[in-house]
Amino acid sequence: MQDRDRCLALDADDPLRDFRDEFALPEGVIYLVGNSLGALPRRTPERVNQAVTDEWGVQLVGGWNSAGWYDQPLRVGDRIAPLIGAGPGQVVAGNTTSIAVHQAVSAALRLRPDRRVIVSDVNNFPTDHYMIEGLAAGYEIRDFAEGRFDDAAVVLLSEVDYRTAERHDVAEVTARVQAAGALMVWDVCHSVGALRVDVSAADFAVGCTYKYLNGGPGAPAFLYVNPRHHATAVNTLSGWHGHADPFAFESGYRPAEGIRRFAISTPHVLSFAALEAALDIWDRVPLDRLRAKSVALGELFVELVGDALELASPADPERRGSHVSFRHPDGYPVMRALIDRGVQGDFRAPDILRFGLAPLYTRYTDVYDAATTLLEVLEKELWRDDRYARRLAVT
Amino acid sequence: MQDRDRCLALDADDPLRDFRDEFALPEGVIYLVGNSLGALPRRTPERVNQAVTDEWGVQLVGGWNSAGWYDQPLRVGDRIAPLIGAGPGQVVAGNTTSIAVHQAVSAALRLRPDRRVIVSDVNNFPTDHYMIEGLAAGYEIRDFAEGRFDDAAVVLLSEVDYRTAERHDVAEVTARVQAAGALMVWDVCHSVGALRVDVSAADFAVGCTYKYLNGGPGAPAFLYVNPRHHATAVNTLSGWHGHADPFAFESGYRPAEGIRRFAISTPHVLSFAALEAALDIWDRVPLDRLRAKSVALGELFVELVGDALELASPADPERRGSHVSFRHPDGYPVMRALIDRGVQGDFRAPDILRFGLAPLYTRYTDVYDAATTLLEVLEKELWRDDRYARRLAVT
Repeated sequence: MQDRDRCLALDADDPLRDFRDEFALPEGVIYLVGNSLGALPRRTPERVNQAVTDEWGVQLVGGWNSAGWYDQPLRVGDRIAPLIGAGPGQVVAGNTTSIAVHQAVSAALRLRPDRRVIVSDVNNFPTDHYMIEGLAAGYEIRDFAEGRFDDAAVVLLSEVDYRTAERHDVAEVTARVQAAGALMVWDVCHSVGALRVDVSAADFAVGCTYKYLNGGPGAPAFLYVNPRHHATAVNTLSGWHGHADPFAFESGYRPAEGIRRFAISTPHVLSFAALEAALDIWDRVPLDRLRAKSVALGELFVELVGDALELASPADPERRGSHVSFRHPDGYPVMRALIDRGVQGDFRAPDILRFGLAPLYTRYTDVYDAATTLLEVLEKELWRDDRYARRLAVT
Repeated sequence: MQDRDRCLALDADDPLRDFRDEFALPEGVIYLVGNSLGALPRRTPERVNQAVTDEWGVQLVGGWNSAGWYDQPLRVGDRIAPLIGAGPGQVVAGNTTSIAVHQAVSAALRLRPDRRVIVSDVNNFPTDHYMIEGLAAGYEIRDFAEGRFDDAAVVLLSEVDYRTAERHDVAEVTARVQAAGALMVWDVCHSVGALRVDVSAADFAVGCTYKYLNGGPGAPAFLYVNPRHHATAVNTLSGWHGHADPFAFESGYRPAEGIRRFAISTPHVLSFAALEAALDIWDRVPLDRLRAKSVALGELFVELVGDALELASPADPERRGSHVSFRHPDGYPVMRALIDRGVQGDFRAPDILRFGLAPLYTRYTDVYDAATTLLEVLEKELWRDDRYARRLAVT
């Protein structure tokens, strides 16, 4: 068993140690929900205020050019690209993950007009499924676990499962799907900013920026499109910002060249400003060290909890993302009792306790203190308290 | 001819006079582009900063409940509703106008499965057209000017034309379209916050909040759905925030009751915060006085310009929105020369000079000074200068 002094030493030796100072974290709370909503970078308030008071307040409509609002989706996309193994001109930011799923799957179906099967994972985050249902008139939706892709138009899968943190092998699955003639769409919401993502062989990828990337609540999502599809893929959400000449105000739609054709319409400029401040940090993060620390934090948590809870995540850290999940039949009150004691994780129905480990600001001592508190809650059955009855929880 | 002293008196007597103090307007500029991007309300920076530093920074993921982020789309929708003649529970805010157009038209097509014609106006803002094209496989798109709706599934029209400010009679057109068995979708981007909009008889309406409503660059859009369609209309962008029980994480989509089924996914929380600050002003605006001042400002502008330019807008103020447009074959350099002299309007291809009159902060003296400067630019041909060559302009 590791002890707390050993964790203090690990924090002191941590090569990512200084990144924690770049975040505003509330006192007295161990925040292990960075896999749901990342913490606030200290420089974000100033950047957002500048966008509001100077860019909007002073430059006014001129900001579309002078403050670069018009180019935000592509400029920010280019900054996200290195985090997912993509190159410049391959990622467009904006809107939401759900809308990006719609764009990717809709485009994929048109690229495989002779196939009538969509493959998805029943364990995918539900909105991925739901968006497919909105597109699936005339299509069969098949579970990924069946492993059959030879008549599939498209396969949609999360790299890291939002509940268990189980990680798929992106390269292996992509190759298998494409060998069967289907197109591969990855959802990297739970992996981007947590490990070295590489979707470069895939056909499409989608993700959000409000989790490990710390872009803020409701920060813009992103869509990767493999360059081999840029000339042929159709954006069925064919808004004016994806037009070849949006300011000519032509009456007919002509898609732009390259990734721009997947832009839709006016970017959410203020939400983009917060994301840009977060990316100022990500430009400097060494991804291999990030992953190494994520694995070490996870291993520490699993070791400390031991047999006190059933591990819902894979035991092999290579098959796990950057959160650790446990099962408990009374998981909801257990989590409420834990939160009451200053350790914030979250609960996912029916029985999953999740703990997000964000290597930029989660310390070894945080994991130690969180696990110790969790063990105390379990051992003393502190969760058997009427105050911890079920209520609404939000990802 | 009105003189400047008369305009000063009109400003002094203006019942909306005090609203101007609630906006941060740059010195030395007459800003007549509020029909494209509204000015910054003085209280917005503080409200946005509070959302960033307190709601996000301190409440963190708990903000979904404690700061009310989850309910933003419906709560804000209810505040927009009175501005468009709608009631509570009929408007959902979020995403962009283009996406709302997709939702409305897509839902309308499914409500009229036996009809294969979509009617639109060639003068509609192009993104409306473009979004229809993305939906129109198997459909004929017909111009509104043909006036035939008896085989149309849906008619999409802007209440106020973005170029000429021509205003359609919403009640008359809606009745005519519905009598023919078609569904009516109004785009009120250029009328909401400028006049008393009433889409209550329509089937759907969409609009943006970054123009007259002053919600900020890329502020959330909105979608009105007539209650008679709430139980039957389908949201093909079927994301988890429109689900009947989003936090049960069910694998199948079950639409929520009421307007919530038209929510899609995570709201852009920081962009919403800015919009909420703007609506704190709109809660107090008397719409009839707003419209009366808009008409008076427009009449003053038209009178002052006189025969110096060809009026592109209807001469009858009742048939006009809240901007005034003129034609000039060299409209672009004329506008550049005017902007160089501190009067900001904008240009729309091929030959339209637009001047937005935002009654909350545009003064009679602003109109006087703008028209006087415009007349000087034209009279002295100040626009014949190489500096005013064509470059990118953005709405």
